[in-house]
Amino acid sequence: MQPHTVTSFDAELKAMAGLIGEMVSRAEASVADAAKALDEGNVKLAHQVIEADTALDRLQHKVEEMAFSVIARRQPVSVDLRAIVAAIRIANDLERIGDLAKNVAKRAIAMGQSPAAVKVVSSLLPLALRVKEQVRLVGEAYRTRDSGIALEVWRSDGAIDKMHTSLFRELLTYMMEDPRSIGTCTHLLFCAKNFERIGDHATNIAETTNYMITGQVL
Amino acid sequence: MQPHTVTSFDAELKAMAGLIGEMVSRAEASVADAAKALDEGNVKLAHQVIEADTALDRLQHKVEEMAFSVIARRQPVSVDLRAIVAAIRIANDLERIGDLAKNVAKRAIAMGQSPAAVKVVSSLLPLALRVKEQVRLVGEAYRTRDSGIALEVWRSDGAIDKMHTSLFRELLTYMMEDPRSIGTCTHLLFCAKNFERIGDHATNIAETTNYMITGQVL
Repeated sequence: MQPHTVTSFDAELKAMAGLIGEMVSRAEASVADAAKALDEGNVKLAHQVIEADTALDRLQHKVEEMAFSVIARRQPVSVDLRAIVAAIRIANDLERIGDLAKNVAKRAIAMGQSPAAVKVVSSLLPLALRVKEQVRLVGEAYRTRDSGIALEVWRSDGAIDKMHTSLFRELLTYMMEDPRSIGTCTHLLFCAKNFERIGDHATNIAETTNYMITGQVL
Repeated sequence: MQPHTVTSFDAELKAMAGLIGEMVSRAEASVADAAKALDEGNVKLAHQVIEADTALDRLQHKVEEMAFSVIARRQPVSVDLRAIVAAIRIANDLERIGDLAKNVAKRAIAMGQSPAAVKVVSSLLPLALRVKEQVRLVGEAYRTRDSGIALEVWRSDGAIDKMHTSLFRELLTYMMEDPRSIGTCTHLLFCAKNFERIGDHATNIAETTNYMITGQVL
């Protein structure tokens, strides 16, 4: 093995990990901003979340292209191949987190500053902040190659599902008590579902990260 | 180029296309069965849809593994690389179609044979059958390398969105007229959204198939 080749391969893997890091930051910001836009009825911020999504799409394509090119040129095996396949999968999950945040932003715009929504939205925030934290943590697990943190994220998914289920029931109750709130509450049901699914993607990333580090499937 | 190598490469590409073909058949059957289970309140069929989903997951992993292995060993370029990357993307979309059908099946079980639902479910069927047809058509476009069919699927997405929007309004109206139907109708709102998203994945597959054939992005 030539030292030059090894170094340059490592540099390629690092560049790919760097792109994933950038995607994590952007996905995390999109989740936080979408929740804030919803909470404040902030239409301007919601539009920013929608616009920001194209950057995540572009980064995902960049990760994929780089990964296929590295596989073709280097024919990696074992731990290196795992890192590259992991990058493809994680980029895919992060891109979908961006899509879900964008969908929340669109609903924030559709709902506007509907006063009926204000009280109900406040129950959504804890769920949104919790999944945002999952995205941040799993990004840290990936960056620092810490399977302990990945496992922690993976184990928290049940708690998030519980928050979602309880919120879901709360929203159904509002709708039954006041049928005029059905339109708004339906948007909120889908927002809640989107945040839950963002949590699912964080769980996927935790599984992939753990697999990348340990070679074991959770 | 050695004829033997070329032949065997072609055989690998064909095997991958064969797996995609099997995934299309299974995804199409899952969508049809999920719709039928919902329409008939057929809990047994719904359980079958849920169980059938693992086969799609397994096939997706098989396509991915085969693709990475081919890229590493053959270092394909141009049209061949496009076919392999397309297989990875299409397998991903088909796996997600299976997930969405599974979610409809779970909701069919949760709703059981709730008589209130019967009338409303019937409005869902045309949407479900339409997206099932999109999955079938896009599978044919892939199998026969027909970009014309792919384009046809791609163009139909707007019509499906319209069907979904109209169904969505109908469901909201039911909920407002009869708050006791809110629980059932909420399940149906999510079922409708799942079918719409299955249509989105068919559109993705149409885009990928067209890219595979023509090298052009729609």
